[in-house]
Amino acid sequence: MQSLDRLVRALRRMPGVGPRQAERFAAYFLRAPQGEVEEFIAAVISMKQDVKLCPVCYAYSEKDRCEVCADPDRDHSSICVVEDPQDIEAIEKTGAFKGLYHVLHGAISPMEGKGAEHVKIKELLTRLQESKVPVQEVIIATDPDAEGETTAMYLADLLRDMVPHISRIGYGVPLGGDLDYLDEMTLLYSLKGRTKI
Amino acid sequence: MQSLDRLVRALRRMPGVGPRQAERFAAYFLRAPQGEVEEFIAAVISMKQDVKLCPVCYAYSEKDRCEVCADPDRDHSSICVVEDPQDIEAIEKTGAFKGLYHVLHGAISPMEGKGAEHVKIKELLTRLQESKVPVQEVIIATDPDAEGETTAMYLADLLRDMVPHISRIGYGVPLGGDLDYLDEMTLLYSLKGRTKI
Repeated sequence: MQSLDRLVRALRRMPGVGPRQAERFAAYFLRAPQGEVEEFIAAVISMKQDVKLCPVCYAYSEKDRCEVCADPDRDHSSICVVEDPQDIEAIEKTGAFKGLYHVLHGAISPMEGKGAEHVKIKELLTRLQESKVPVQEVIIATDPDAEGETTAMYLADLLRDMVPHISRIGYGVPLGGDLDYLDEMTLLYSLKGRTKI
Repeated sequence: MQSLDRLVRALRRMPGVGPRQAERFAAYFLRAPQGEVEEFIAAVISMKQDVKLCPVCYAYSEKDRCEVCADPDRDHSSICVVEDPQDIEAIEKTGAFKGLYHVLHGAISPMEGKGAEHVKIKELLTRLQESKVPVQEVIIATDPDAEGETTAMYLADLLRDMVPHISRIGYGVPLGGDLDYLDEMTLLYSLKGRTKI
Protein backbone atom coordinates (compact mmCIF):
# COMPACT_ATOMS: atom_id res chain seq x y z
CA MET A 1 0.00 0.00 0.00
CA GLN A 2 1.55 3.25 -1.21
CA SER A 3 0.42 5.57 1.62
CA LEU A 4 1.55 3.18 4.30
CA ASP A 5 4.92 2.49 2.65
CA ARG A 6 5.49 6.22 2.26
CA LEU A 7 4.94 6.84 5.98
CA VAL A 8 7.13 3.88 6.95
CA ARG A 9 9.92 5.36 4.81
CA ALA A 10 9.49 8.76 6.51
CA LEU A 11 9.48 7.18 9.99
CA ARG A 12 12.67 5.24 9.23
CA ARG A 13 14.54 8.54 8.89
CA MET A 14 14.19 9.05 12.65
CA PRO A 15 17.37 8.01 14.49
CA GLY A 16 17.63 4.34 15.44
CA VAL A 17 14.27 3.36 13.92
CA GLY A 18 14.35 0.01 12.08
CA PRO A 19 11.74 -1.45 9.73
CA ARG A 20 9.72 -3.19 12.46
CA GLN A 21 9.54 -0.16 14.75
CA ALA A 22 8.60 2.05 11.78
CA GLU A 23 5.71 -0.32 11.04
CA ARG A 24 4.55 -0.20 14.65
CA PHE A 25 4.70 3.62 14.61
CA ALA A 26 2.72 3.70 11.34
CA ALA A 27 0.13 1.41 12.94
CA TYR A 28 -0.08 3.87 15.84
CA PHE A 29 -0.83 6.78 13.50
CA LEU A 30 -3.44 4.67 11.74
CA ARG A 31 -5.22 3.76 14.97
CA ALA A 32 -4.82 7.09 16.79
CA PRO A 33 -7.84 9.42 16.89
CA GLN A 34 -7.75 12.16 14.25
CA GLY A 35 -7.37 14.84 16.95
CA GLU A 36 -4.29 13.18 18.40
CA VAL A 37 -2.65 12.98 14.97
CA GLU A 38 -3.50 16.64 14.32
CA GLU A 39 -1.93 17.62 17.65
CA PHE A 40 1.20 15.66 16.68
CA ILE A 41 1.46 17.49 13.36
CA ALA A 42 0.83 20.87 15.02
CA ALA A 43 3.57 20.10 17.58
CA VAL A 44 6.08 19.30 14.83
CA ILE A 45 5.21 22.47 12.90
CA SER A 46 5.35 24.83 15.88
CA MET A 47 8.56 23.27 17.16
CA LYS A 48 10.12 23.66 13.72
CA GLN A 49 9.03 27.33 13.66
CA ASP A 50 9.83 28.29 17.24
CA VAL A 51 12.93 26.38 18.24
CA LYS A 52 16.25 27.51 16.83
CA LEU A 53 19.85 26.92 17.79
CA CYS A 54 21.37 29.61 20.02
CA PRO A 55 23.94 31.41 17.80
CA VAL A 56 26.41 31.52 20.70
CA CYS A 57 26.36 28.02 22.19
CA TYR A 58 24.16 26.06 19.70
CA ALA A 59 21.77 24.85 22.40
CA TYR A 60 18.07 24.84 21.59
CA SER A 61 16.42 28.20 22.06
CA GLU A 62 13.06 29.82 21.42
CA LYS A 63 14.58 33.30 21.70
CA ASP A 64 17.47 35.18 20.06
CA ARG A 65 19.86 33.69 22.56
CA CYS A 66 19.30 30.71 24.83
CA GLU A 67 18.37 31.30 28.46
CA VAL A 68 21.81 30.34 29.74
CA CYS A 69 23.78 32.60 27.36
CA ALA A 70 21.35 35.49 28.05
CA ASP A 71 21.69 35.19 31.82
CA PRO A 72 24.12 37.84 33.19
CA ASP A 73 24.38 35.93 36.49
CA ARG A 74 26.07 32.95 34.83
CA ASP A 75 29.87 32.83 34.79
CA HIS A 76 30.73 33.83 31.22
CA SER A 77 34.39 32.90 31.71
CA SER A 78 33.64 29.19 32.03
CA ILE A 79 32.37 26.94 29.20
CA CYS A 80 31.24 23.35 29.44
CA VAL A 81 31.45 21.49 26.11
CA VAL A 82 28.83 18.79 25.50
CA GLU A 83 27.90 16.60 22.51
CA ASP A 84 24.12 17.06 22.48
CA PRO A 85 21.62 19.72 23.59
CA GLN A 86 19.98 17.17 25.91
CA ASP A 87 23.25 16.88 27.88
CA ILE A 88 22.77 20.45 29.11
CA GLU A 89 19.62 19.55 31.01
CA ALA A 90 21.40 16.64 32.73
CA ILE A 91 24.23 18.92 33.90
CA GLU A 92 21.85 21.73 34.91
CA LYS A 93 20.05 19.26 37.18
CA THR A 94 23.25 18.77 39.21
CA GLY A 95 23.25 22.52 40.03
CA ALA A 96 27.06 22.25 40.16
CA PHE A 97 27.89 24.30 37.08
CA LYS A 98 27.18 28.01 36.75
CA GLY A 99 29.03 28.80 33.52
CA LEU A 100 27.94 28.62 29.88
CA TYR A 101 27.72 25.68 27.47
CA HIS A 102 28.89 24.84 24.00
CA VAL A 103 27.06 22.11 22.08
CA LEU A 104 29.16 20.26 19.51
CA HIS A 105 26.15 18.44 17.97
CA GLY A 106 28.00 15.17 17.80
CA ALA A 107 31.48 13.82 18.32
CA ILE A 108 34.48 13.06 16.16
CA SER A 109 34.19 9.49 14.91
CA PRO A 110 36.97 8.26 12.63
CA MET A 111 35.09 4.95 12.31
CA GLU A 112 32.09 6.74 10.76
CA GLY A 113 34.25 9.16 8.81
CA LYS A 114 33.11 12.10 10.97
CA GLY A 115 35.99 14.53 11.39
CA ALA A 116 36.27 17.75 13.39
CA GLU A 117 34.50 19.65 10.59
CA HIS A 118 31.29 17.68 11.28
CA VAL A 119 30.90 19.10 14.78
CA LYS A 120 30.86 22.68 16.05
CA ILE A 121 34.54 22.89 17.02
CA LYS A 122 35.42 25.72 14.61
CA GLU A 123 32.50 27.64 16.13
CA LEU A 124 33.97 27.09 19.60
CA LEU A 125 37.37 28.46 18.53
CA THR A 126 35.75 31.55 16.99
CA ARG A 127 33.68 32.01 20.13
CA LEU A 128 36.75 31.82 22.38
CA GLN A 129 38.60 34.34 20.20
CA GLU A 130 35.68 36.78 20.05
CA SER A 131 34.38 36.45 23.62
CA LYS A 132 34.15 39.81 25.43
CA VAL A 133 34.81 38.07 28.75
CA PRO A 134 38.08 36.10 28.38
CA VAL A 135 37.34 32.39 28.86
CA GLN A 136 39.36 31.00 31.77
CA GLU A 137 38.05 27.45 31.89
CA VAL A 138 36.75 24.81 29.48
CA ILE A 139 35.23 21.63 30.93
CA ILE A 140 34.98 18.91 28.30
CA ALA A 141 31.88 16.86 29.06
CA THR A 142 31.65 14.74 25.92
CA ASP A 143 30.28 11.21 26.38
CA PRO A 144 32.45 8.59 28.12
CA ASP A 145 32.77 6.43 24.98
CA ALA A 146 35.39 6.08 22.23
CA GLU A 147 34.05 9.00 20.15
CA GLY A 148 33.62 11.29 23.16
CA GLU A 149 37.12 10.45 24.33
CA THR A 150 38.65 11.09 20.90
CA THR A 151 36.82 14.42 20.72
CA ALA A 152 37.97 15.38 24.23
CA MET A 153 41.61 14.66 23.42
CA TYR A 154 41.42 16.55 20.12
CA LEU A 155 39.78 19.57 21.80
CA ALA A 156 42.22 19.59 24.70
CA ASP A 157 45.15 19.74 22.22
CA LEU A 158 43.51 22.56 20.24
CA LEU A 159 42.65 24.68 23.26
CA ARG A 160 45.86 24.23 25.23
CA ASP A 161 47.31 27.61 24.23
CA MET A 162 44.00 29.49 24.28
CA VAL A 163 42.47 28.64 27.65
CA PRO A 164 44.26 28.54 31.05
CA HIS A 165 42.20 25.69 32.55
CA ILE A 166 41.02 22.70 30.53
CA SER A 167 39.46 19.70 32.24
CA ARG A 168 37.58 16.50 31.45
CA ILE A 169 34.65 15.28 33.56
CA GLY A 170 35.68 12.57 36.02
CA TYR A 171 35.07 8.92 35.38
CA GLY A 172 34.05 6.65 38.21
CA VAL A 173 31.55 4.42 39.86
CA PRO A 174 28.00 5.74 39.36
CA LEU A 175 26.14 6.39 42.61
CA GLY A 176 23.70 3.66 43.47
CA GLY A 177 25.51 1.30 41.13
CA ASP A 178 26.60 -2.18 42.07
CA LEU A 179 30.35 -2.82 41.79
CA ASP A 180 29.67 -6.36 40.60
CA TYR A 181 27.84 -5.12 37.55
CA LEU A 182 30.34 -2.47 36.53
CA ASP A 183 32.62 -2.97 33.55
CA GLU A 184 36.30 -3.14 34.38
CA MET A 185 37.23 0.08 32.55
CA THR A 186 34.87 2.15 34.69
CA LEU A 187 36.22 0.49 37.80
CA LEU A 188 39.79 1.10 36.63
CA TYR A 189 39.03 4.79 36.13
CA SER A 190 37.28 5.00 39.48
CA LEU A 191 40.45 3.64 41.14
CA LYS A 192 42.70 6.01 39.17
CA GLY A 193 40.42 8.92 40.09
CA ARG A 194 40.17 8.04 43.79
CA THR A 195 40.02 10.98 46.21
CA LYS A 196 41.24 11.20 49.81
CA ILE A 197 38.59 11.09 52.52
CA MET B 1 10.90 25.27 26.16
CA GLN B 2 7.21 24.93 25.42
CA SER B 3 7.36 23.92 21.74
CA LEU B 4 9.97 21.26 22.35
CA ASP B 5 8.16 19.82 25.39
CA ARG B 6 4.92 19.70 23.43
CA LEU B 7 6.54 17.67 20.64
CA VAL B 8 8.24 15.34 23.14
CA ARG B 9 4.83 14.69 24.73
CA ALA B 10 3.32 13.91 21.31
CA LEU B 11 6.21 11.60 20.40
CA ARG B 12 5.84 9.69 23.66
CA ARG B 13 2.37 8.55 22.59
CA MET B 14 4.00 6.33 19.97
CA PRO B 15 4.25 2.72 21.19
CA GLY B 16 7.34 1.84 23.21
CA VAL B 17 8.85 5.35 23.08
CA GLY B 18 10.41 6.49 26.36
CA PRO B 19 11.53 9.99 27.36
CA ARG B 20 15.08 9.67 25.99
CA GLN B 21 14.01 8.30 22.62
CA ALA B 22 11.32 11.00 22.35
CA GLU B 23 14.01 13.64 22.91
CA ARG B 24 16.21 12.09 20.25
CA PHE B 25 13.28 12.05 17.81
CA ALA B 26 12.50 15.71 18.61
CA ALA B 27 16.16 16.55 17.96
CA TYR B 28 15.85 14.79 14.59
CA PHE B 29 12.86 16.96 13.61
CA LEU B 30 14.75 20.05 14.71
CA ARG B 31 17.80 19.23 12.61
CA ALA B 32 16.02 17.75 9.59
CA PRO B 33 15.69 19.98 6.49
CA GLN B 34 12.29 21.69 6.21
CA GLY B 35 11.46 19.65 3.10
CA GLU B 36 12.02 16.36 4.91
CA VAL B 37 9.75 17.42 7.77
CA GLU B 38 7.08 18.52 5.29
CA GLU B 39 7.30 15.14 3.52
CA PHE B 40 6.87 13.43 6.90
CA ILE B 41 3.74 15.45 7.68
CA ALA B 42 2.33 14.86 4.20
CA ALA B 43 2.95 11.12 4.62
CA VAL B 44 1.05 11.07 7.93
CA ILE B 45 -1.87 13.03 6.48
CA SER B 46 -2.22 10.97 3.30
CA MET B 47 -1.89 7.68 5.19
CA LYS B 48 -4.57 8.82 7.60
CA GLN B 49 -6.84 9.73 4.67
CA ASP B 50 -6.15 6.77 2.39
CA VAL B 51 -5.62 3.76 4.64
CA LYS B 52 -8.66 2.26 6.31
CA LEU B 53 -9.38 -1.09 7.91
CA CYS B 54 -10.98 -3.65 5.60
CA PRO B 55 -14.57 -4.06 6.91
CA VAL B 56 -14.33 -7.84 6.39
CA CYS B 57 -10.96 -8.86 7.85
CA TYR B 58 -9.71 -5.61 9.52
CA ALA B 59 -6.42 -5.63 7.62
CA TYR B 60 -5.15 -2.30 6.29
CA SER B 61 -6.67 -1.33 2.98
CA GLU B 62 -6.67 1.63 0.61
CA LYS B 63 -9.82 0.37 -1.11
CA ASP B 64 -13.33 -0.65 -0.03
CA ARG B 65 -12.09 -4.13 0.72
CA CYS B 66 -8.49 -5.26 1.13
CA GLU B 67 -6.72 -6.96 -1.76
CA VAL B 68 -6.95 -10.41 -0.18
CA CYS B 69 -10.69 -10.25 0.61
CA ALA B 70 -11.42 -8.83 -2.86
CA ASP B 71 -9.49 -11.59 -4.65
CA PRO B 72 -11.89 -14.26 -6.03
CA ASP B 73 -8.96 -16.67 -6.50
CA ARG B 74 -8.33 -16.90 -2.75
CA ASP B 75 -9.99 -19.73 -0.80
CA HIS B 76 -12.86 -17.97 1.00
CA SER B 77 -13.59 -21.06 3.10
CA SER B 78 -10.32 -20.80 5.02
CA ILE B 79 -9.46 -18.02 7.50
CA CYS B 80 -6.13 -17.40 9.21
CA VAL B 81 -6.49 -15.38 12.44
CA VAL B 82 -3.57 -13.06 13.32
CA GLU B 83 -2.98 -10.46 16.01
CA ASP B 84 -1.64 -7.59 13.90
CA PRO B 85 -1.96 -6.40 10.30
CA GLN B 86 1.81 -6.75 9.89
CA ASP B 87 1.54 -10.51 10.51
CA ILE B 88 -0.32 -10.90 7.21
CA GLU B 89 2.69 -9.81 5.21
CA ALA B 90 4.89 -12.34 7.02
CA ILE B 91 2.50 -15.20 6.21
CA GLU B 92 1.98 -14.02 2.62
CA LYS B 93 5.74 -14.25 2.10
CA THR B 94 5.66 -17.98 2.80
CA GLY B 95 3.25 -18.45 -0.11
CA ALA B 96 1.80 -21.41 1.81
CA PHE B 97 -1.62 -19.93 2.60
CA LYS B 98 -4.21 -19.12 -0.02
CA GLY B 99 -7.22 -18.33 2.19
CA LEU B 100 -8.37 -15.10 3.85
CA TYR B 101 -7.26 -13.41 7.06
CA HIS B 102 -8.85 -12.00 10.18
CA VAL B 103 -6.93 -9.41 12.18
CA LEU B 104 -7.75 -9.33 15.91
CA HIS B 105 -5.79 -6.09 16.53
CA GLY B 106 -4.26 -7.44 19.71
CA ALA B 107 -4.57 -10.42 21.98
CA ILE B 108 -6.42 -11.25 25.16
CA SER B 109 -4.23 -10.29 28.12
CA PRO B 110 -5.69 -10.91 31.60
CA MET B 111 -2.50 -9.35 33.05
CA GLU B 112 -3.24 -6.04 31.30
CA GLY B 113 -6.99 -6.32 31.85
CA LYS B 114 -7.62 -6.82 28.13
CA GLY B 115 -10.54 -9.21 27.64
CA ALA B 116 -12.08 -10.66 24.50
CA GLU B 117 -14.08 -7.45 23.97
CA HIS B 118 -10.82 -5.54 23.33
CA VAL B 119 -9.99 -7.54 20.21
CA LYS B 120 -12.01 -8.26 17.09
CA ILE B 121 -13.37 -11.67 18.18
CA LYS B 122 -17.05 -10.68 18.08
CA GLU B 123 -16.43 -9.44 14.53
CA LEU B 124 -14.97 -12.85 13.64
CA LEU B 125 -18.06 -14.64 14.97
CA THR B 126 -20.39 -12.37 13.00
CA ARG B 127 -18.25 -12.90 9.91
CA LEU B 128 -18.41 -16.68 10.25
CA GLN B 129 -22.19 -16.56 10.70
CA GLU B 130 -22.77 -14.23 7.74
CA SER B 131 -20.18 -15.62 5.32
CA LYS B 132 -21.68 -16.59 1.94
CA VAL B 133 -19.08 -19.33 1.54
CA PRO B 134 -19.25 -21.58 4.64
CA VAL B 135 -15.93 -21.40 6.47
CA GLN B 136 -14.39 -24.87 6.72
CA GLU B 137 -11.08 -24.05 8.38
CA VAL B 138 -9.71 -21.51 10.87
CA ILE B 139 -5.95 -21.43 11.43
CA ILE B 140 -5.09 -19.55 14.61
CA ALA B 141 -1.77 -17.77 14.05
CA THR B 142 -1.62 -15.55 17.14
CA ASP B 143 1.87 -14.91 18.56
CA PRO B 144 3.67 -17.77 20.35
CA ASP B 145 3.60 -15.96 23.73
CA ALA B 146 1.32 -16.12 26.79
CA GLU B 147 -1.26 -13.67 25.39
CA GLY B 148 -1.28 -15.28 21.96
CA GLU B 149 -1.67 -18.71 23.54
CA THR B 150 -4.53 -17.56 25.80
CA THR B 151 -6.28 -16.02 22.80
CA ALA B 152 -5.78 -19.18 20.72
CA MET B 153 -7.29 -21.39 23.44
CA TYR B 154 -10.22 -19.01 23.96
CA LEU B 155 -10.91 -18.84 20.21
CA ALA B 156 -10.63 -22.60 19.73
CA ASP B 157 -13.27 -23.12 22.44
CA LEU B 158 -15.60 -20.52 20.91
CA LEU B 159 -15.31 -21.84 17.36
CA ARG B 160 -15.47 -25.57 18.08
CA ASP B 161 -19.13 -25.90 17.11
CA MET B 162 -19.01 -23.42 14.24
CA VAL B 163 -16.05 -24.53 12.13
CA PRO B 164 -15.11 -28.10 11.16
CA HIS B 165 -11.33 -27.64 11.18
CA ILE B 166 -9.55 -25.45 13.74
CA SER B 167 -5.77 -25.49 13.99
CA ARG B 168 -2.93 -23.63 15.67
CA ILE B 169 0.33 -22.86 13.84
CA GLY B 170 3.07 -25.32 14.74
CA TYR B 171 5.76 -24.51 17.25
CA GLY B 172 9.27 -25.70 16.63
CA VAL B 173 12.89 -25.00 15.97
CA PRO B 174 13.27 -21.98 13.68
CA LEU B 175 15.20 -22.73 10.50
CA GLY B 176 18.81 -21.60 10.66
CA GLY B 177 18.60 -21.44 14.41
CA ASP B 178 21.13 -23.01 16.73
CA LEU B 179 19.74 -25.65 19.11
CA ASP B 180 22.12 -24.45 21.84
CA TYR B 181 20.56 -21.03 21.89
CA LEU B 182 16.95 -22.13 21.91
CA ASP B 183 14.84 -21.88 25.04
CA GLU B 184 13.70 -25.22 26.40
CA MET B 185 10.01 -24.58 25.79
CA THR B 186 10.55 -24.15 22.05
CA LEU B 187 12.66 -27.29 22.01
CA LEU B 188 10.02 -29.18 23.97
CA TYR B 189 7.37 -28.13 21.47
CA SER B 190 9.63 -29.04 18.56
CA LEU B 191 9.98 -32.54 20.03
CA LYS B 192 6.25 -32.89 20.62
CA GLY B 193 5.55 -31.66 17.12
CA ARG B 194 8.10 -33.95 15.45
CA THR B 195 7.18 -35.36 12.01
CA LYS B 196 8.21 -38.62 10.43
CA ILE B 197 10.81 -38.49 7.69
